Amino acid sequence: MKDYLLRPDPADPRLTERVVGRDHTGAEVAADVVVERPLTLFLNGQEIVTLMTIGDHPDCLAVGYLLNQGMLRADDTVTDIEHDPDLDVVVVRTARATDYEAKLSKKTLTSGCAQGTVFGDLMEDFDAADLPPDAKVRTSWLYALTRAINTTPSLYLAAGAIHGCVLCEADRPLLYMEDVGRHNAVDKIAGYMFLNELAAADKLFYTTGRLTSEMVIKTVRMGVPILCSRSGFTAWGVALARRADLTLIGRARGKRFLALAGEHRIVYDADPEAVAEEPKAAQRKAAVT
Amino acid sequence: MKDYLLRPDPADPRLTERVVGRDHTGAEVAADVVVERPLTLFLNGQEIVTLMTIGDHPDCLAVGYLLNQGMLRADDTVTDIEHDPDLDVVVVRTARATDYEAKLSKKTLTSGCAQGTVFGDLMEDFDAADLPPDAKVRTSWLYALTRAINTTPSLYLAAGAIHGCVLCEADRPLLYMEDVGRHNAVDKIAGYMFLNELAAADKLFYTTGRLTSEMVIKTVRMGVPILCSRSGFTAWGVALARRADLTLIGRARGKRFLALAGEHRIVYDADPEAVAEEPKAAQRKAAVT
Repeated sequence: MKDYLLRPDPADPRLTERVVGRDHTGAEVAADVVVERPLTLFLNGQEIVTLMTIGDHPDCLAVGYLLNQGMLRADDTVTDIEHDPDLDVVVVRTARATDYEAKLSKKTLTSGCAQGTVFGDLMEDFDAADLPPDAKVRTSWLYALTRAINTTPSLYLAAGAIHGCVLCEADRPLLYMEDVGRHNAVDKIAGYMFLNELAAADKLFYTTGRLTSEMVIKTVRMGVPILCSRSGFTAWGVALARRADLTLIGRARGKRFLALAGEHRIVYDADPEAVAEEPKAAQRKAAVT
Repeated sequence: MKDYLLRPDPADPRLTERVVGRDHTGAEVAADVVVERPLTLFLNGQEIVTLMTIGDHPDCLAVGYLLNQGMLRADDTVTDIEHDPDLDVVVVRTARATDYEAKLSKKTLTSGCAQGTVFGDLMEDFDAADLPPDAKVRTSWLYALTRAINTTPSLYLAAGAIHGCVLCEADRPLLYMEDVGRHNAVDKIAGYMFLNELAAADKLFYTTGRLTSEMVIKTVRMGVPILCSRSGFTAWGVALARRADLTLIGRARGKRFLALAGEHRIVYDADPEAVAEEPKAAQRKAAVT
């Protein structure tokens, strides 16, 4: 299989920290834990938000955040991205003049381990989305993808307590981003896709997190027709996926999965009984929540 | 063991919805998924926020949210709480006149599956907190608590994809709240404690979620000296717990756990080898993320 375009770099010393504590026997032990750091995002002259992030790919995170909040449009030209690692600031500049003062004053805290804040008019774009009805996902791809993702070296495997999102094409995982907040991992993928002009219509989005409303909204906004997770569903996530005709596949572990929307895109070409159960070491237990 | 003061009611028909989809064999199957609904919160005359929640205990959620955002003080008198289930609105009224317009305009999106928004001055109260140094947690209590919590009927066991938080005293779980967003579950417990005048200094807080910075901040704000989770840590969560001398115990599953702050409160009175591993059915896999 061809390698990822981008994959986690668990050896990056900036992303984890070694701390010493005591285990259940009272013995002193060391553990690696993931780092969170603030990143303050400016769009042109305006301060938009401070995000807590592991700090890799600040350019992708900044652009993806703005895209997924509707502050950057698909046809916008990004003229410059400056990241100052000492000040923890990233500035995105666009050809179009922007002003989101009114937008910034209206907010909804969403549920899930998710974005937290959705600015007012996300749903307008949602209903305008047009996912390709003839995109397909083969069950043999699903099995190959989850096996590949689960065995890719990652911060999750090294330190736990982190979310992963993976953009895939057929049976190949392309972009694998991680972050403490799942929303950041999604946004980094959206930003990378924008900056590198990757198409969305032939992709599948995989997440370790739950299939909540905002995960569905973001996937639909990105134009990706298939969303897959090893975790479960919420009712609103299912309802929105059905409204947008997004293929929603959850609880995907070993040979099992459950599709609750857009099932017409699934091609059952693999024999589930021939699929091995997940190896113990690859199982995400409850470490990521 | 004495029963909970409050425990999940997974049979409440408002909390889950049955949806039909297809499984990995292509067969039609039904699944229960948790419901998310909006709840718009007013403090006196001011609209504060719209939360997405499963919708149980709106009074506790409203009061706990305001407390944990520093908009309601420990010495405030709540004169009235009105919940309108048709409008999805809850109004909290206080004896003191409140005005948080300036506060509402400044926000930080936090990481984790967490709050999402932290208003500016949370950290001031954090540093003023004074957790009791002589509170203790026995390892025998930890083992008894995790066993009791894992076997309590819950929305998690019924439908998955939900977070749980439990307020405990010695080896007894007292309050068990669930919500799609972990922050809501915490806030509901904080609200219940305020409305029922429960003390915090002799309690332990258990969460299914990760031990991130905001989880630590909320626990310290609540005045609870011990925070325990089956999930992992972030570096900032550990640093803040050490700064506040909060006892931070993570990765608590079966006989194992890891303490990364405030270890002096742990009394090792149980033989870990005598503790049974978790039964398979009680294991939270990655369904909650």
